[in-house]
Amino acid sequence: MLTDHYELTMISAARSHPAAARPCVFEVFARRLPDGRRYGVVGGTGRLLDALADFRFGDDELAAVSGFLDAETLDWLAGYRFTGDIDGYLEGELYFPGSPILTVRAHFADAVILETLILSILNHDSAIASAAARMVSAAGSRPIIEMGSRRTHERAAVASSRAAYLAGLTATSNLEAARSYGVPSAGTAAHAFTLLFTGPDGPDELGAFRAQVQRLGTGTTLLVDTYDITRGVANAIEAAGPELGAVRIDSGDLGILARQVRDQLDGLGAHGTKIVVSGDLDEYAIASLRAEPVDIYGVGTSLVTGSGAPTAGMVYKLVEVDGLPVAKRSSHKESHGGAKAAVRLARESGTVVEEVLYPAGGPTPVLAGHTAAPLQTPLVRGGQRVEGLPSLTESREHLRDALVTLPWEGLGLSHGEPAIPTRYEF
Amino acid sequence: MLTDHYELTMISAARSHPAAARPCVFEVFARRLPDGRRYGVVGGTGRLLDALADFRFGDDELAAVSGFLDAETLDWLAGYRFTGDIDGYLEGELYFPGSPILTVRAHFADAVILETLILSILNHDSAIASAAARMVSAAGSRPIIEMGSRRTHERAAVASSRAAYLAGLTATSNLEAARSYGVPSAGTAAHAFTLLFTGPDGPDELGAFRAQVQRLGTGTTLLVDTYDITRGVANAIEAAGPELGAVRIDSGDLGILARQVRDQLDGLGAHGTKIVVSGDLDEYAIASLRAEPVDIYGVGTSLVTGSGAPTAGMVYKLVEVDGLPVAKRSSHKESHGGAKAAVRLARESGTVVEEVLYPAGGPTPVLAGHTAAPLQTPLVRGGQRVEGLPSLTESREHLRDALVTLPWEGLGLSHGEPAIPTRYEF
Repeated sequence: MLTDHYELTMISAARSHPAAARPCVFEVFARRLPDGRRYGVVGGTGRLLDALADFRFGDDELAAVSGFLDAETLDWLAGYRFTGDIDGYLEGELYFPGSPILTVRAHFADAVILETLILSILNHDSAIASAAARMVSAAGSRPIIEMGSRRTHERAAVASSRAAYLAGLTATSNLEAARSYGVPSAGTAAHAFTLLFTGPDGPDELGAFRAQVQRLGTGTTLLVDTYDITRGVANAIEAAGPELGAVRIDSGDLGILARQVRDQLDGLGAHGTKIVVSGDLDEYAIASLRAEPVDIYGVGTSLVTGSGAPTAGMVYKLVEVDGLPVAKRSSHKESHGGAKAAVRLARESGTVVEEVLYPAGGPTPVLAGHTAAPLQTPLVRGGQRVEGLPSLTESREHLRDALVTLPWEGLGLSHGEPAIPTRYEF
Repeated sequence: MLTDHYELTMISAARSHPAAARPCVFEVFARRLPDGRRYGVVGGTGRLLDALADFRFGDDELAAVSGFLDAETLDWLAGYRFTGDIDGYLEGELYFPGSPILTVRAHFADAVILETLILSILNHDSAIASAAARMVSAAGSRPIIEMGSRRTHERAAVASSRAAYLAGLTATSNLEAARSYGVPSAGTAAHAFTLLFTGPDGPDELGAFRAQVQRLGTGTTLLVDTYDITRGVANAIEAAGPELGAVRIDSGDLGILARQVRDQLDGLGAHGTKIVVSGDLDEYAIASLRAEPVDIYGVGTSLVTGSGAPTAGMVYKLVEVDGLPVAKRSSHKESHGGAKAAVRLARESGTVVEEVLYPAGGPTPVLAGHTAAPLQTPLVRGGQRVEGLPSLTESREHLRDALVTLPWEGLGLSHGEPAIPTRYEF
């Protein structure tokens, strides 16, 4: 039922006409990247293939739509199984404006019914992965923990953790993401834990820290900014000794505080105690802390909301009917008709220079002195998921490698043009 | 498993200490409204109460967390049922900075474990409801259809449809929201449907419209902007006659096009044919079309992304332990300790003037010549949902009535201060 009312009314209307039997090609692409971004990261393909395998209409679903559909269409829905072919960019691949991220080949009804499911998953997960990748770049070699579950829908939170891990984050606070996708989970304590240790004599931060260390060991992370941070650091080392794993600072001017806390920790002999910072961090705040003695970042809101771009803006467009290219013609939303393939051209050094879209099945574009890497991979054949597709961990490695191929300016955080141009060879 | 790693490690650490047995009060509130907003709308309470009833740890869940938890905590989790009390603002109630939207009274572990679930649901649904309410205000008496499912996570889409309906939208494209929550669903056709009717002789828009009208009747909505809009309107009336239900325009300058299309429809005798507009509409675009002959709006991306504020930014804070107020003290994130109650004071005319927060259980604030409406309602007692809570439809009506009580400037779309101030009587 994760589909739109109009997908079903379109199917009903088309089924009365021979056009419904025509083989179609639908493509997913983004007309543009979010404002000023240099690249996008494809996320969600793995989740989409899982969801596709479960996309069926049972008795409950059919009863729910019987009020506005004819008997023939209901019969068709009851037997619906996707039997077409899907090709696409792998998860963790970079994309640019126009990139044919997913290509669905099937009869009209078989393909159009998937529009909402495909776009929901790819638009959400790609938005999160794209934002997360910028944070990873900004953090350099320092790990980032995802802790944004509470700032987004409870199920979107799980997908966000997965997409963040794909993009290179180190761990998540979300336990369901750990269970479903094997993302390493992490976390220690919130301010509520320290506040709990308040008695008639007032706060007892040291008591809270002692209780945490007693249970979780000296390797734990103590949250030191509930009351006075300097006192908090002193209490932390008093409770755990200089072998304390880490302290976390969640508020205030994180750069200044990190330096003060580092000095204080070093003065107490806690040279190995790490500093975790969190609190409304985005890629710009992470970058601004590069010169500070920060060891680990925790990100939340900005990650799960795509850091200003909560959706990737991808669309699902019919581009070919019965071998004929088709395209909407009115206004500024012009599209390029015809099924497309794509290659990314790279210098011998490995640096990519442009993405070229060309008619699917046509000759692969060549450029002297450059390699041309094809970007689409078979994902589904005859309704069945292709075997041997990359794991989430492999996709994560692919992205890390792909980012290295961008021209230097392509990794810039500032607003700019896409890292490489998209050229249409039509 | 829709919880955070650190909720469980906190519980583990607290359980070794007598503090864990202390009765606690946690409060949900937003420190501020999204930039320049005048009010927030509480959304998600109904979904939260549903989710709370299902919040359990089964064998699979326990196995998944056994790697980092001690046996005692695992035992406790296995038997976990929420047995505390919850009070809160009803769905569809307005809220302002500091409003105690939800108050959870329970032992520490019983309450802290719910943080992520509570915040995920309330932050998401309130963000959507708050944005949607502004769109409804901007549209005046014209209906709005929610069609944003493809621009957000597939499950967040369902919750978004529900929140949008709560806020006064008329219908949704999302079939799962129709099934789960009784939101009326609507929809007709996309550009792909018209493009499908492309043969060797080129496009056949008239054929597409005829097929749609044949199956869905003359009351249907025909999408007229796939090719040339003027030609599209002519084809639409040729296919359906002047009794056609509506035409939809999804691109271009919607104000200019609406006027042209209205003139054309009237000229063809189709005086009753409505005009539906869609395409990147937000509350500002809706407002800018007030003087144009638009009958129905379709909104998508801006709705499901909260129109620039995709999360409500609510937090879940421990405010009382064993009857003693507690609060974080460091930096700018200061909070008011102690359990709070809230009333909204109104003139005899019904116009509200301020929201007053005061110690729970204390005397209700009074202001001469003003009424004081209490804002919190019992939602859960002893772990059981209170009977007789409002339905989604009743909550929808409550919001409609509540918006009428705001001072005029409180309904402004422009950036400004909260419609009424929040006063702390402490």
